[in-house]
Amino acid sequence: MSAVPEDFIRRTAALSEEVTKPFPSSRKVYVEGSRPDIRVPMREIEQSPTPGNFGAEENPPIYAYDTSGIYTDPLAEIDLLKGLPALREAWITERGDTEQLDGPSSEFGSQRQNDPELAHLRFEHIRTPLRAKAGKNVSQMHYARRGIITPEMEYVAIRENMKLEQMRADGRYEKLLRQHKGESFGANIPDVITAEFVREEIAAGRAIIPCNINHPEQEPMIIGRNFRTKINTNIGNSAVTSSIAEEVEKMVWSARWGGDTLMDLSTGKNIHETREWILRNAPMPIGTVPIYQALEKVNGKAEDLTWEIFRDTLIEQAEQGVDYFTIHAGVLLRYVPLTASRVTGIVSRGGSIMAKWCLAHHKENFLYTHFEDICEIMKAYDVAFSLGDGLRPGSLADANDAAQFGELETLGELTKIAWQHDVQVMIEGPGHVPLQMIKENVEKELRDCFEAPFYTLGPLVIDIAPAYDHITSAIGAANIGWYGTAMLCYVTPKEHLGLPNKEDVREGIITYKISAHASDLAKGFPGVQVQDNAMSKARFEFRWKDQFALALDPERAEEYHDETMPKDAHKVAHFCSMCGPNFCSMKITQDVREFAARQGMMEDAALNAGMEEKAMEFRKQGAELYKKA
Amino acid sequence: MSAVPEDFIRRTAALSEEVTKPFPSSRKVYVEGSRPDIRVPMREIEQSPTPGNFGAEENPPIYAYDTSGIYTDPLAEIDLLKGLPALREAWITERGDTEQLDGPSSEFGSQRQNDPELAHLRFEHIRTPLRAKAGKNVSQMHYARRGIITPEMEYVAIRENMKLEQMRADGRYEKLLRQHKGESFGANIPDVITAEFVREEIAAGRAIIPCNINHPEQEPMIIGRNFRTKINTNIGNSAVTSSIAEEVEKMVWSARWGGDTLMDLSTGKNIHETREWILRNAPMPIGTVPIYQALEKVNGKAEDLTWEIFRDTLIEQAEQGVDYFTIHAGVLLRYVPLTASRVTGIVSRGGSIMAKWCLAHHKENFLYTHFEDICEIMKAYDVAFSLGDGLRPGSLADANDAAQFGELETLGELTKIAWQHDVQVMIEGPGHVPLQMIKENVEKELRDCFEAPFYTLGPLVIDIAPAYDHITSAIGAANIGWYGTAMLCYVTPKEHLGLPNKEDVREGIITYKISAHASDLAKGFPGVQVQDNAMSKARFEFRWKDQFALALDPERAEEYHDETMPKDAHKVAHFCSMCGPNFCSMKITQDVREFAARQGMMEDAALNAGMEEKAMEFRKQGAELYKKA
Repeated sequence: MSAVPEDFIRRTAALSEEVTKPFPSSRKVYVEGSRPDIRVPMREIEQSPTPGNFGAEENPPIYAYDTSGIYTDPLAEIDLLKGLPALREAWITERGDTEQLDGPSSEFGSQRQNDPELAHLRFEHIRTPLRAKAGKNVSQMHYARRGIITPEMEYVAIRENMKLEQMRADGRYEKLLRQHKGESFGANIPDVITAEFVREEIAAGRAIIPCNINHPEQEPMIIGRNFRTKINTNIGNSAVTSSIAEEVEKMVWSARWGGDTLMDLSTGKNIHETREWILRNAPMPIGTVPIYQALEKVNGKAEDLTWEIFRDTLIEQAEQGVDYFTIHAGVLLRYVPLTASRVTGIVSRGGSIMAKWCLAHHKENFLYTHFEDICEIMKAYDVAFSLGDGLRPGSLADANDAAQFGELETLGELTKIAWQHDVQVMIEGPGHVPLQMIKENVEKELRDCFEAPFYTLGPLVIDIAPAYDHITSAIGAANIGWYGTAMLCYVTPKEHLGLPNKEDVREGIITYKISAHASDLAKGFPGVQVQDNAMSKARFEFRWKDQFALALDPERAEEYHDETMPKDAHKVAHFCSMCGPNFCSMKITQDVREFAARQGMMEDAALNAGMEEKAMEFRKQGAELYKKA
Repeated sequence: MSAVPEDFIRRTAALSEEVTKPFPSSRKVYVEGSRPDIRVPMREIEQSPTPGNFGAEENPPIYAYDTSGIYTDPLAEIDLLKGLPALREAWITERGDTEQLDGPSSEFGSQRQNDPELAHLRFEHIRTPLRAKAGKNVSQMHYARRGIITPEMEYVAIRENMKLEQMRADGRYEKLLRQHKGESFGANIPDVITAEFVREEIAAGRAIIPCNINHPEQEPMIIGRNFRTKINTNIGNSAVTSSIAEEVEKMVWSARWGGDTLMDLSTGKNIHETREWILRNAPMPIGTVPIYQALEKVNGKAEDLTWEIFRDTLIEQAEQGVDYFTIHAGVLLRYVPLTASRVTGIVSRGGSIMAKWCLAHHKENFLYTHFEDICEIMKAYDVAFSLGDGLRPGSLADANDAAQFGELETLGELTKIAWQHDVQVMIEGPGHVPLQMIKENVEKELRDCFEAPFYTLGPLVIDIAPAYDHITSAIGAANIGWYGTAMLCYVTPKEHLGLPNKEDVREGIITYKISAHASDLAKGFPGVQVQDNAMSKARFEFRWKDQFALALDPERAEEYHDETMPKDAHKVAHFCSMCGPNFCSMKITQDVREFAARQGMMEDAALNAGMEEKAMEFRKQGAELYKKA
């Protein structure tokens, strides 16, 4: 029972092959920071030159934000059984404020570690945990408030800019850099993101870098409304379905397609071991809802939960490296009865567990009464709060009601407490909200939670499209991101119906990349229109391969194109299957351009003369339509 | 060569079986108007009772807007070879303002009719065309302005209301009728839609009922921002792919899934015959872009187009029964050079054809100079204008530019001319527009086009997601619908890549039903939240079969559910695969409700007492978190 089972090895090996498949025309590049171990990954997309009949010019490479980790770096050695390299290890240790423990300091963690029955499930290369030295605080907010720019801060600054300054200095990007003015609803996005700006935003609580000292493998990223809109993906097994191998597979898959963070929402067996496998291989921050595991420990009886069991779970998970915890500390006893008249009551699992506990004991939520104790744990590992919206609406009918908004106000109070401890905080939000009521959510969150980053699930803008809720929620997500939400929690087509499979995860992620990108364009984040402009230019010039490479999902774009135009020749053809070879509007436009150039039509003089002539003729006919330019 | 070929018959027979498959728990009902031949179809969705542990109550039937025609009526005889019954025939003839022609009065129509080579392609039961008697105007706008409420107007009023008044009078719907206040941006939606209101809106030009006198088979519907938001679907063959049978199949399929209108954009062979097959079997209004066919007649050479050829095409199609024509009369010579510096030039096929013609002849667009002649044809058959946006942007980069907005202003001038002829008008809109620039499009359209209904394609809010452009555009569509767009032209996953197949059409339609419904909820259209509320209640009570039946796509919802929970028993199970049997938040909420009821927690007195106690205790601890309710 001591070895990892054969089928798991087989499975992960197969996985490695699939997830390391390079994206077309792309290579992994790294931008180095002020020190050689700050190396920020980006995907460089090579473009082919413009064909002669469209003006024969070189098209510069485009850079895409890259969440895929070293899995898409052909030079990297991938071994899921060993885990990823500890990228941040030196940054953490050289700060000198942490100590290496002998082993897990949580009772449960220690028990799992020493259980020989679990050997076959256990990740083999577990490190002993780090913890802040007594009296120390290792949170990024703590450093930020003391004026320290950490390597993590510099890393995310480079990552947010995506070579923007270099592009501005390079003439080839001039046209591609054209971008419409955003409408930012009070966001304050600078022209270039500096490490100092990152520090200020973190110090002010307007952004967080979730990066537990026990998750040195992750590539830092930032969540805040003055940065690129991020997306979270959820995976997790349940009592009914899924296994460790499947969950690891989904995590790597999620990284490949663009998940910025990932929550492991497992509720079934071997939660502890599953999480270890995920963390050791995860290039992105990992979040959990610790109450799920605590509930498992009391056999699913909410009323048997205790602060002690929960506390042990927090330490267990913090020492594994979880980067942010969803804590439903705002589900107050007095809010619970407000949900009784709702159409869908309490739909948050964490919220309903706490509500049940509160009622069973007729006591205030122990997450609330022990909130400062929780802060002490968070700052010892730099785990960020994701203050849970346990009373979020589960239907349009319940949107923006007293229970939801009451809890939000309490989350604001808790934010202040967390900030007194220099603990990073983001705030979770709904859920199900009709379009016209979305903005109120953001405005209230910014006001009541003092601009702490908002992290919302969708919201779904209608209730009647199960199997399409990635779409119903993508509409809400694009809008709420535009209004100022920092991170969007994805929804898959299986929402309300079942657990997502791998393809559902991909579908959910691409859908949410769309929403996040739409938000960034709308709020006017600098440089985000470059890829759109490059795509549009490639479209106009019939550079099909470049179109695929520039797509959020290059594989599906090519596959769909090939359904009607399968031959390779068609990938350079100056038409597509929609209109046929002699009837393409793009082609006709090109003819118009050439004709216009040839005829000198572009010259205002000639144009006006022609128009004047026509105009007179038309006026003579008595049709008073013409308006002089 | 005189019979319809065997494979076509086989194909249409197979189709009938598929499209007549009833939706689960649903039956077709008809609401009768002031006369027995006004029978408005709706889909009645039967719900099962609430289970005992959730309070054992009856759940009333829900009514869904039904575009599927008699194809889903098990009592109807379906025969695609014979076409649909002529529902509106009596309404048209009894007005006494039309005359039956001997045959097609267009040259081309007559030629196709009499060509023995085409017999094998020809629909067998072609009626001879109707036309307005000399000096008569048969448009709905003309009747409306003379104070006449036509059966068509009464029909759409009943259809828009969806039994709202009956539900208001029926106590069982009390909770389901709860709806959030909309934000309507100046729309003026009444509490109940009356036939008189319909008449006023049509008279004012704020709404249209596209209903050619030669398309008596169609079930009237209305397009206007004070009504339900509609969606249009596009089909059509091209030189590269597709056939008549496939196009008819797509049309019926479109009706099944919710297409309110349909445009036949065929550009390949046998356009005339394809259109006849579609019209004779179409329960929805059919639109075309006549310039496509005119171009075929001159072998694809735009410069060879003439007014005479175009005019003959208009008459040909009007006499077949096309309900609205896209006419690119706003592509003026002076706007064409404005597109030369665009990233994607002119992307509208019709727009680029006219631009090419204008430049080739150095003359003003003949659709513009002959606009009044076109009006004369439109009013003789009641064909509505869909004034084409030939200069719509094909990329974010080109959004809201001088060419686009210049054309829109011209469309406004043309609207006034059309209205002088009492011809119905809607205005086409973009395209590709980032989120923050969408509202400007609607505001400008309403102002410059005097509130004529706006009909937009998407818009796509990002350019980098080919294969997902149904989603990128659904985001824009939901927003633009909310702001006041009356009809949304769907986009399928194949946009920019190829021609949609049947499944793409379904995916595109459901996606756009989502956007349209989101818009209706957002603008506060009365009663539209009923189905959402019913869905949410069914969700909370674990009535799985009711959830499927209430879904926009019942089949896919059930299929996805069955992937993880295949057994029938699970359709009545009080849990789902997401959380497992003992861990469902819905179940826990129910426990909370029961507990709350049992403990008398709902009583304010008890609650406040308990809270006060907790609050004092908490204050003693010095944690100043608690805020008295």
